Amino acid sequence: MGIAFLKGHGTQNDFVLLPDPDGSLELTAERVQALCDRRRGLGADGVLRVMRTAALEPGTAADDSEWFMDYRNADGSIAEMCGNGVRVFARYLLDAGLVNTAEFVVGSRAGGRPVTVHADRSVTVAMGPGAVTGESTASVAGVTYAGLAVDVGNPHLVSVTDTDIAGLDLSRQPDFDQQVFPHGVNLEFVNRIDDGALRMRVHERGVGETRSCGTGTVAAAVADLRLAGESAGKRTVHVPGGMVTVTVDEGETTLTGPAVILAGGELDSAWWDSPA
Amino acid sequence: MGIAFLKGHGTQNDFVLLPDPDGSLELTAERVQALCDRRRGLGADGVLRVMRTAALEPGTAADDSEWFMDYRNADGSIAEMCGNGVRVFARYLLDAGLVNTAEFVVGSRAGGRPVTVHADRSVTVAMGPGAVTGESTASVAGVTYAGLAVDVGNPHLVSVTDTDIAGLDLSRQPDFDQQVFPHGVNLEFVNRIDDGALRMRVHERGVGETRSCGTGTVAAAVADLRLAGESAGKRTVHVPGGMVTVTVDEGETTLTGPAVILAGGELDSAWWDSPA
Repeated sequence: MGIAFLKGHGTQNDFVLLPDPDGSLELTAERVQALCDRRRGLGADGVLRVMRTAALEPGTAADDSEWFMDYRNADGSIAEMCGNGVRVFARYLLDAGLVNTAEFVVGSRAGGRPVTVHADRSVTVAMGPGAVTGESTASVAGVTYAGLAVDVGNPHLVSVTDTDIAGLDLSRQPDFDQQVFPHGVNLEFVNRIDDGALRMRVHERGVGETRSCGTGTVAAAVADLRLAGESAGKRTVHVPGGMVTVTVDEGETTLTGPAVILAGGELDSAWWDSPA
Repeated sequence: MGIAFLKGHGTQNDFVLLPDPDGSLELTAERVQALCDRRRGLGADGVLRVMRTAALEPGTAADDSEWFMDYRNADGSIAEMCGNGVRVFARYLLDAGLVNTAEFVVGSRAGGRPVTVHADRSVTVAMGPGAVTGESTASVAGVTYAGLAVDVGNPHLVSVTDTDIAGLDLSRQPDFDQQVFPHGVNLEFVNRIDDGALRMRVHERGVGETRSCGTGTVAAAVADLRLAGESAGKRTVHVPGGMVTVTVDEGETTLTGPAVILAGGELDSAWWDSPA
């Protein structure tokens, strides 16, 4: 045994955490792929390496926060931010005693993210601005849904519809306007289920349907408020993996949701050296 | 943190091991389901509880081996045996010092299984007799494949074919003769790729296509030998998750394959009490 790890999830978006304060692990794409493989590895949507910002290589985008979330997608590629991952990351820092206040900033390639860890271990993350940028449509199985384009750092198209989203077949890529979204788009389909409460399913760009998408829930709240003629407010969003709360204000949004760390231990050194 | 676990796999059939010598864990179906959930748990095809045979409740089928493999399927149900799981189980016992010889017997609900842990940590398991019981057919996408029915404690239908099995669509249940297999059947599709070497894909009863099936590889070897007019011999079997070797003799078969234990640690006690 040898390499420390933890396993956690936020609304069933799941992660392997690798505590590596000094950045001494050689975290190759192959190792990330093996770690995230759901049969031969631990299995996860991504890896969150826990590094001191001071240990980053010069030139890595980062703010002056003490701890940096080095996020990797399951395919080994680097990603800037992950709204569900940063909650799990924040909870780990506080539980492990690596920070000693419940409010702090997590560094990421998208800049510092202010977080608050609550008494029940849910976490609020400042997600930056969310802006409606236009209108477009998405089509599922030949049926077209009107939607609002929303920019939350990444592109979304949110379709609030009266059609029951439980019946949508999201196993295939829905059609969207490639002129509007030349680099692809995350597609959210939303039902209003109650005053201020939404139910959402999401087809993530390059991934497919997932049980949760942090920026997608923010986009859904921004779009639903716009449709109600409001620019600020609060929405609870039910996704297949759980429930989160989003607040929207001029120039800032927050995402509050669960952060679960269910296990921790060590990876076998021989496996780490040559994943079987 | 609190409940000890390990994670391992045999040809990518993967397991959570729970060391519980005295049987003190309350291993409910709900806990097994949560452990095996690939998003909110550790994720696995099944759970292997490591118990002293002496700690079993009276009436549990077991032989007089010291250690008992209490196997649970991912849905929480009890299973008798697992040809890939028992290799991982055996490796754990030896690595953990719970046995002190490389040859020993693992108890299971299907009786004791003699095992040998080799220097490279691969494991040979005596799988009991494998017998051809008749002929039948399976159909995939309208194409019918002749096969041999093989009993390896559980029912199999092995179709050795010249059609490249790489092109078969096993995402749906293939058709089979319900009169011959009233309780369902595991379906193996096999290409001969070399002298004594087979490539196999498997559709497991009640599960769907998997990356490996221990008894299925034994059935494939038994069927291929029969088709060659032999009742004893050896076959290597390549499955999507790796490679195993099967020997067949009168009244006895053995399965040799890899056993990987990649991580170990503790499950959070609060999560164990109430999996989130």
